[in-house]
Amino acid sequence: LSVNNAMTADFLRSAYGGESMAHMRYLIWGDVAEKEGLPNIGKLFKAISYAEWAHAKNHFRELSEQKGDFTVAAGAVFGNTKTVENLQGAINGELHEINQMYPVYLETARFQKERGAEKSFHWALEAEKIHAKLFQEAQDAAKSGQDYQINSVHVCPFCGHTILNEAPDKCPICGAPKDKYKSF
Amino acid sequence: LSVNNAMTADFLRSAYGGESMAHMRYLIWGDVAEKEGLPNIGKLFKAISYAEWAHAKNHFRELSEQKGDFTVAAGAVFGNTKTVENLQGAINGELHEINQMYPVYLETARFQKERGAEKSFHWALEAEKIHAKLFQEAQDAAKSGQDYQINSVHVCPFCGHTILNEAPDKCPICGAPKDKYKSF
Ligand SMILES: [Fe+2]
Ligand SMILES: [Fe+2]
Ligand SMILES: [Fe+2]
Ligand SMILES: [Fe+2]
Ligand SMILES: [Fe+2]
Ligand SMILES: [Fe+2]
Repeated sequence: LSVNNAMTADFLRSAYGGESMAHMRYLIWGDVAEKEGLPNIGKLFKAISYAEWAHAKNHFRELSEQKGDFTVAAGAVFGNTKTVENLQGAINGELHEINQMYPVYLETARFQKERGAEKSFHWALEAEKIHAKLFQEAQDAAKSGQDYQINSVHVCPFCGHTILNEAPDKCPICGAPKDKYKSF
Repeated sequence: LSVNNAMTADFLRSAYGGESMAHMRYLIWGDVAEKEGLPNIGKLFKAISYAEWAHAKNHFRELSEQKGDFTVAAGAVFGNTKTVENLQGAINGELHEINQMYPVYLETARFQKERGAEKSFHWALEAEKIHAKLFQEAQDAAKSGQDYQINSVHVCPFCGHTILNEAPDKCPICGAPKDKYKSF
């Protein structure tokens, strides 16, 4: 749990900032969805907020030895209106992480041989791919005036893997067993 | 709920980033305190994390109309070790907000006649003053090898007002009634 390279440390801090802000806005947008009469989309937001907590926690832990105050530059999506629009913001944020941010951070961690950061970025990237799909499905439902037709959402507390209706026997990203998943 | 001035909007985004990261690190440090056998300090971290959620939510709501992707620059404290040291990080972060960040943001909102942002910054500033004191008391206890001697912590979900042992009849910062407080 120690980072030797300044660029990887910067990217971990930036990713921590981005994940912390995503965690927060999904909590807020989850409340909006509930008030709009879309409890399952609310549940999806809360579950994915928890997955972003797992990502933030992992990045923060890799920075355990880099103590002190820093100014963090991180991407965030703003806007707080109707759920269909909030979901578009969520999709845009996830796609930026999937297509731009995490691939570059991951490549840098590999290039600088930062194994802990590499794992933390890899886990987040894999989970974000699922988040983008789930938010897209939820938006398709909301656009046709319906709630998202799901029973439950299950999230791996170690890597943020997110899956509908039932947890797998073993997390496909980090290998954690089924009974560790948190259910929403 | 609409901001007309770019500087106030920038400061709201920065404050949202800072509060989101504070919310997150207090969750993480709360888990550390619990594992260290300091459940009341863990409880304090979780309660104050909830207060930072209230601040982030208020700032985010003021930015409802400023939709889109932004790069946010925001202050954050890093380091993840023993609770005595984590509490020092928490105190440093709160004192920066109390002595530097929120006074300047508040002055700017007044100068630019942004009434919504003024209220959001004012509420956060008043709550942070209490947070710094509580973290200092908790650290004094931890330094002498003890847990913080408290029963419960109560937080106003509107302004983040934080108080030990019992909620007041009326929130001294925002006026919310006692039954709205969230208890930890
Ligand atoms: Fe994430
Ligand atoms: Fe995500
Ligand atoms: Fe996992
Ligand atoms: Fe705060
Ligand atoms: Fe605070
Ligand atoms: Fe209040």
